[in-house]
Amino acid sequence: MTAGGFDTALDFLTSEILAGRLSKDARLPNERELATQLGTSRSAVREAIKVLQAQGVITSHTGPGRGTRVAASQGPALGRMLKLHVALDAISFDELTETRVVLERAAAEAAAVHADDASLADLGRLAESMVAVSDTARFNELDTAFHVAIAGLGANRLIRDMTIAIREAVARPILSAEERMPNWEALRLRLLAEHSGIHRALSARDGAAAANLCEAHIRGAHRVLLPGSR
Amino acid sequence: MTAGGFDTALDFLTSEILAGRLSKDARLPNERELATQLGTSRSAVREAIKVLQAQGVITSHTGPGRGTRVAASQGPALGRMLKLHVALDAISFDELTETRVVLERAAAEAAAVHADDASLADLGRLAESMVAVSDTARFNELDTAFHVAIAGLGANRLIRDMTIAIREAVARPILSAEERMPNWEALRLRLLAEHSGIHRALSARDGAAAANLCEAHIRGAHRVLLPGSR
Repeated sequence: MTAGGFDTALDFLTSEILAGRLSKDARLPNERELATQLGTSRSAVREAIKVLQAQGVITSHTGPGRGTRVAASQGPALGRMLKLHVALDAISFDELTETRVVLERAAAEAAAVHADDASLADLGRLAESMVAVSDTARFNELDTAFHVAIAGLGANRLIRDMTIAIREAVARPILSAEERMPNWEALRLRLLAEHSGIHRALSARDGAAAANLCEAHIRGAHRVLLPGSR
Repeated sequence: MTAGGFDTALDFLTSEILAGRLSKDARLPNERELATQLGTSRSAVREAIKVLQAQGVITSHTGPGRGTRVAASQGPALGRMLKLHVALDAISFDELTETRVVLERAAAEAAAVHADDASLADLGRLAESMVAVSDTARFNELDTAFHVAIAGLGANRLIRDMTIAIREAVARPILSAEERMPNWEALRLRLLAEHSGIHRALSARDGAAAANLCEAHIRGAHRVLLPGSR
């Protein structure tokens, strides 16, 4: 029940994974065995497992043959962590914007090289589908999907996951600002035109142009929507 | 004791922070009150708090006037998460290298603009201090400190924290490779010269040169140390 027991259990599981003794899809010993082995309480082991689950490192499934296993999908946990830190002002909106620019430029350059034609056609249809959408909430969803799709075309999972996490962290303040815009329709048309331009540059396999258009698009939108933000 | 109770407690605390009702330094209600309020077990509340502690969102301190409070320092948790995902092959070494290049280029460009002269002098002394260090473990520590210092000069906490997390995630494989190098001294001298060059470019406030030198330094070192890595 002590904090020490929890730290012991978390350190043990972490170091087993770092040393490669617990690898992907490996099944964890059960709570009781781990607690006995480590000399901790079962609740300390359970808490350590919960922490690793929340980070996407371990998954639990019920049913035959399942149980608690080592997994690997950090995306959602990373996004949740970033959103909390934005809410706590541990990261300012300006810092997020700069980081978005850096990562999305890199993602666009990589997408121009690595994306296949079918994926680029899908991206074009996504951009087209936004023309008919004036509702801010739905537009914001599709806008997020557009940027996430580009991040996914670059074949670097870490840049993709970080881009998704940041785009999700800014989605809520962007939506609030869009809902307050007196001239939302003018901004909406501008964002649509910019998305088309990015899609055209990617389709022409011009990574430098796509990166520059992404940067101008992100900076311009943030400047209009959140002018005094920090 | 149910998983549902844990999710309820984690969702509640997360949404209180996201909505700004629990802000930095706010003290959390005690476990018993939260459990009663949410209709969950106390252990579900305790597990949710542990998860947020592990993410650096909540800290607990004993002693008068302390207790469990909302905090803000994501750095260590982000680094631990990345290291686990590298160990699990959820991120390849190539992906880390590309992401390092993108972030450290941005950090170097920002450092050339924002760093004060005293900080740049400190960086120069750090680079100088490595000349006398041939022990690989100690060299690796100072090398990490050099890159982390540059990331800290750019004034963007998210880029800094991500750079630190990635540099820490690669520290162990880099050290192992350095220890296996037959011609370590030759590589060591080359790395030292490259660090000097980066420091000179920053001191000359030439952000573009510093960024290019950082990129060449990272790619060159990774190519020599981990040639077949993925």
